[in-house]
Amino acid sequence: MIKAYAAMDAGGKLVPWQYEAGALGPDEVEIAVDYCGICHSDVSMLDNEWGMSAYPLVAGHEVVGHIAAVGSAVSHLKTGQVVGLGWHSGYCQVCSTCGSGDQNLCASAQGTIVGRHGGFADKVRANASAVVPLPEGMDAKTAGPLFCGGITVFNPMVQFDVKPTDKVAVIGIGGLGHLGLQFLRAWGCEVTAFTSSASKAAEAKELGAHYCINSRNAAEIEQAAGRFDFIISTVNVTLDWNLYLSTLKPKGRLHFVGATLEPLNIGVFGLIMAQRSVSGSPVGSPATIAKMLEFAVQHNIKPVVETFKFAQINEALAHLKSGKARYRIILEH
Amino acid sequence: MIKAYAAMDAGGKLVPWQYEAGALGPDEVEIAVDYCGICHSDVSMLDNEWGMSAYPLVAGHEVVGHIAAVGSAVSHLKTGQVVGLGWHSGYCQVCSTCGSGDQNLCASAQGTIVGRHGGFADKVRANASAVVPLPEGMDAKTAGPLFCGGITVFNPMVQFDVKPTDKVAVIGIGGLGHLGLQFLRAWGCEVTAFTSSASKAAEAKELGAHYCINSRNAAEIEQAAGRFDFIISTVNVTLDWNLYLSTLKPKGRLHFVGATLEPLNIGVFGLIMAQRSVSGSPVGSPATIAKMLEFAVQHNIKPVVETFKFAQINEALAHLKSGKARYRIILEH
Repeated sequence: MIKAYAAMDAGGKLVPWQYEAGALGPDEVEIAVDYCGICHSDVSMLDNEWGMSAYPLVAGHEVVGHIAAVGSAVSHLKTGQVVGLGWHSGYCQVCSTCGSGDQNLCASAQGTIVGRHGGFADKVRANASAVVPLPEGMDAKTAGPLFCGGITVFNPMVQFDVKPTDKVAVIGIGGLGHLGLQFLRAWGCEVTAFTSSASKAAEAKELGAHYCINSRNAAEIEQAAGRFDFIISTVNVTLDWNLYLSTLKPKGRLHFVGATLEPLNIGVFGLIMAQRSVSGSPVGSPATIAKMLEFAVQHNIKPVVETFKFAQINEALAHLKSGKARYRIILEH
Repeated sequence: MIKAYAAMDAGGKLVPWQYEAGALGPDEVEIAVDYCGICHSDVSMLDNEWGMSAYPLVAGHEVVGHIAAVGSAVSHLKTGQVVGLGWHSGYCQVCSTCGSGDQNLCASAQGTIVGRHGGFADKVRANASAVVPLPEGMDAKTAGPLFCGGITVFNPMVQFDVKPTDKVAVIGIGGLGHLGLQFLRAWGCEVTAFTSSASKAAEAKELGAHYCINSRNAAEIEQAAGRFDFIISTVNVTLDWNLYLSTLKPKGRLHFVGATLEPLNIGVFGLIMAQRSVSGSPVGSPATIAKMLEFAVQHNIKPVVETFKFAQINEALAHLKSGKARYRIILEH
């Protein structure tokens, strides 16, 4: 039996709950959960914001733990090995998207907490292909958020070939943004933070920003016209996107990893005149996750976390919802 | 004196008009105009749709002619040489954008018909850096539209690294789209035409389309879900862009060269879930124009044109405005 914390209905408090996981599949591993981060999308799934939740629902997809059991066909992971598991717990591995190394874009990719049970538990199962070992030197306690929040901001740097000579900006300094600042600084870029919070400006500089711009001050943003090669937006609110587009250089890109619910309302002239792009992306592939982890160790990049016991999980979720978490929450036993 | 056809006010008929061009600058050339295409943006400028027209206004920016005079500092062009001139007639040549080969994106690029006089005339002046010789084997009479309409659809293929293995689509089969079909077919791609005009479907196939989809039939478009790597939109009307986005593969791009006036209203989930991009671009650099011309000769790509005499210029403009031109209009003496 796997001992978990489950929501029994949308928006309900999490309660202790057990389930029988059955025989381990040949391509699966079972991970004994040591730590699990809490991501905004855990809340979205627990509250059925996306209309795809099934209850009882065990959330948790920023898992760090050790391998407790391996399926008969698994040869690259061993019992006792320290690993992580993120948003995806498996891929079809046979489509052309998977075959091109873009497993994270596989139309049949299996979400760790979509139609199956995640890491708010003592154990979690996953297809071995989606499980990535922690590199030597990585702090297991704080690594969990890298597997979802971290890869979400790191992956576009790889996908869109961000260069160390680029001038880049991060919109929103929260769970994702505080990692984006660290990655981009270590990447060699000139880094600007757009934040509406004066209290976060000083922290943004400690995290790697060279400059801060008040995201609520249009005049300040206008002064950055034509300045950036790459902007990554981590917020889920609607901003004046055409104003942000105007801060891009020719050939610049405004990239969305934050799921704003309202349409983007982009003017086509702002794209055409300077050959600008607007794009979005989800998490990354296992190979990109592995690269990110090595890069994080090399540059001492760590999620800034607050820690709660698993038994305090409802308190931890309330803290996340309050918007006061600095910057990511970790559950531990 | 240069003998031209000018609009004396916004929307006015063109009338014969002469102007004194003054001494030829050291970096300039004077082109004796043999042919000049008519582009929709000539109409936009003549009618002051963009609020940046000055009258008398001599439009015309798809010029083919021969060099009549060269400035003292010009060494790479010779009197008598057959050349073309497009949307731009000069660049600053000193900014980092120009220095990177992106003169077409130079913030100080000089428009051929913006604040100066264009090719609806017997002669036109331009900075030599913006003038591109016609390669051997190119038909001078039909080449003009390549210098604006042609490069506008060719340039994104170069900029965004469209591959011969890509499945691509063109939205709108008109002055730009009919060239896009030819270029993309010659590039080796599988080519689909989106057109609202049943009469154009057969022509689209002759021009290079393997498949046609009715752009007004949502059900037909839905059947193309996840099919394309690259879509180029040449229309200036508003379509259901999120529906078109859904026809892109993971990592696909919806690229705008048609200046739709309404905002694009893009849903961010459609971008994020499959790492899709939306972008726009104007014309191309002189180096890319030169590559395009060689590619056109090699593959026998030619604008399909209707020809009018310069003296019939008002009739030609009326024909363009009627939407019945197949597919581009050329003026000749």
